Amino acid sequence: MADARKATTNSISAAPSFQTEVLVRFADCDPAGIVFYPRFLEMFNNLVEDWCNTGLNFSFDDIVVQRGWGLPTVHLETDFILPCRMGEVLTAKLFVRRVGRSSIQADIVLSGPDQTDRVRGKVVLVLTDRREHRAIAFPDALRHRILTFVVPDECTRKLKED
Amino acid sequence: MADARKATTNSISAAPSFQTEVLVRFADCDPAGIVFYPRFLEMFNNLVEDWCNTGLNFSFDDIVVQRGWGLPTVHLETDFILPCRMGEVLTAKLFVRRVGRSSIQADIVLSGPDQTDRVRGKVVLVLTDRREHRAIAFPDALRHRILTFVVPDECTRKLKED
Amino acid sequence: MADARKATTNSISAAPSFQTEVLVRFADCDPAGIVFYPRFLEMFNNLVEDWCNTGLNFSFDDIVVQRGWGLPTVHLETDFILPCRMGEVLTAKLFVRRVGRSSIQADIVLSGPDQTDRVRGKVVLVLTDRREHRAIAFPDALRHRILTFVVPDECTRKLKED
Amino acid sequence: MADARKATTNSISAAPSFQTEVLVRFADCDPAGIVFYPRFLEMFNNLVEDWCNTGLNFSFDDIVVQRGWGLPTVHLETDFILPCRMGEVLTAKLFVRRVGRSSIQADIVLSGPDQTDRVRGKVVLVLTDRREHRAIAFPDALRHRILTFVVPDECTRKLKED
Repeated sequence: MADARKATTNSISAAPSFQTEVLVRFADCDPAGIVFYPRFLEMFNNLVEDWCNTGLNFSFDDIVVQRGWGLPTVHLETDFILPCRMGEVLTAKLFVRRVGRSSIQADIVLSGPDQTDRVRGKVVLVLTDRREHRAIAFPDALRHRILTFVVPDECTRKLKED
Repeated sequence: MADARKATTNSISAAPSFQTEVLVRFADCDPAGIVFYPRFLEMFNNLVEDWCNTGLNFSFDDIVVQRGWGLPTVHLETDFILPCRMGEVLTAKLFVRRVGRSSIQADIVLSGPDQTDRVRGKVVLVLTDRREHRAIAFPDALRHRILTFVVPDECTRKLKED
Repeated sequence: MADARKATTNSISAAPSFQTEVLVRFADCDPAGIVFYPRFLEMFNNLVEDWCNTGLNFSFDDIVVQRGWGLPTVHLETDFILPCRMGEVLTAKLFVRRVGRSSIQADIVLSGPDQTDRVRGKVVLVLTDRREHRAIAFPDALRHRILTFVVPDECTRKLKED
Repeated sequence: MADARKATTNSISAAPSFQTEVLVRFADCDPAGIVFYPRFLEMFNNLVEDWCNTGLNFSFDDIVVQRGWGLPTVHLETDFILPCRMGEVLTAKLFVRRVGRSSIQADIVLSGPDQTDRVRGKVVLVLTDRREHRAIAFPDALRHRILTFVVPDECTRKLKED
């Protein structure tokens, strides 16, 4: 599939995803002039926040403040492939991989204005009741909305072969 | 080895490591009252910085400003096991796993005052020349200092069995 | 002037200004559930960055990386009037008050979706040559662009009387 | 008192103060290689946090989490006099100037290893009940502890003349 590869450096760009743009700011950059890597994880968290607010209609304020719940990241894997520089506008994409009773496994890709992947990550999020310190099942309506973001099987297979 | 287990919840505490203490500050915590996870990665970076400065006698200022080099984190895996709260003093430990020509693979563990592991991570760091945008070999003297922090094989095996 | 007051709670909103919107994010908020105040100053810095990039066509990347200059904040005064909560979209406005040979005095106002001022600040910025550690005069073309953002005298007087 | 002046560039060093040391970290620095100014305000907040914890025996956790109170900064003035570089160990000092029913006015000075003042600030803190959204009087025992940090009048006068 050489042609397909040519058409898209970001191999999973055809999958259903939630997408935002992120300006790399002065505040994100370190003395080496590139994004300080913990700030990439803040970008990950902002993407999840935007997805909850906009994609799922389930705002962080609703989750954390109104309901006393949480959606902590319990696992994270990240490859920092290429540096990002001040002033670049990154495309941030979130792809849901798996939805459990109370957990979501998602892929996150930050790509540059030149379409190259800069950071690729996997996150596992868990819905929790903070007062009772335990995982809780996604309410049905929320689960249905989350499921619309799950990457179909053929995409997953294709990704594994990459 | 039930007794050994009892003696230490942090299973790799016997290995050679670089260790610091980290106070969980108000600035680290989010509206859920616990550490905002990108701040854990800042703690990881601070630990690597302290290790370079104190353990390796190779300061970040020397690396980044004086020499024009960098020591970016190119890969990261993290399990956020238990939340950390404001005011807790965490123990941060770094164990070197593998040393390549220009890369280091290290484990990082943040444990609580109750000796439970709170965050466990793996990082891969690469020494780079920022002007030439390429990895460079560790200078010999530096390599020797790094090697003194490598965890012996029996520890690695034990960890894999855990 | 009761009518005018009614029309605008933010008393300097009629003056020429550079304006952006800022979403208050989870990452900005502290265990008290409101914006952690150093993050307001990051919002200030982002506003100045956006103003330079968009309003002045003089990007931070151009200033800091390409030319080796800087535009540090040398003085800051801030009143934190009302707290800001996660999910609120703030309006951030910058008004230039005075332009010197190498310095700018500007007012910054962050107001809430309810039009109330939440944070009011004054900043003094100085253009510097980082290698020579000294202030430098604004290039003429830049000075002309900056001057288009200066608040006219009658606005200044009105503000002083408030 | 020319000799005394010579002996100390930091003119208020003789006054009663709460003092800590702050390492300037990679994480604090920007692409210009110096501390990003919002991070100075985080250092201010950390100093206030340490003062509450250690100097006043009134921890932020106690204030914010246990009691549902807050100690927000409502006013801030800062002069950024000289830049601070990665690896420098700063001395951070807090001097109480005035204690009201529910507010504290304090001066904060960050000085470098060369004893020069780098950042000088004034903060006004207010004790609040977060549920009732109102200022509350300092409990008596706390007020007594705060008063031990107030700078005597002669120091204030001397400072005003500087």
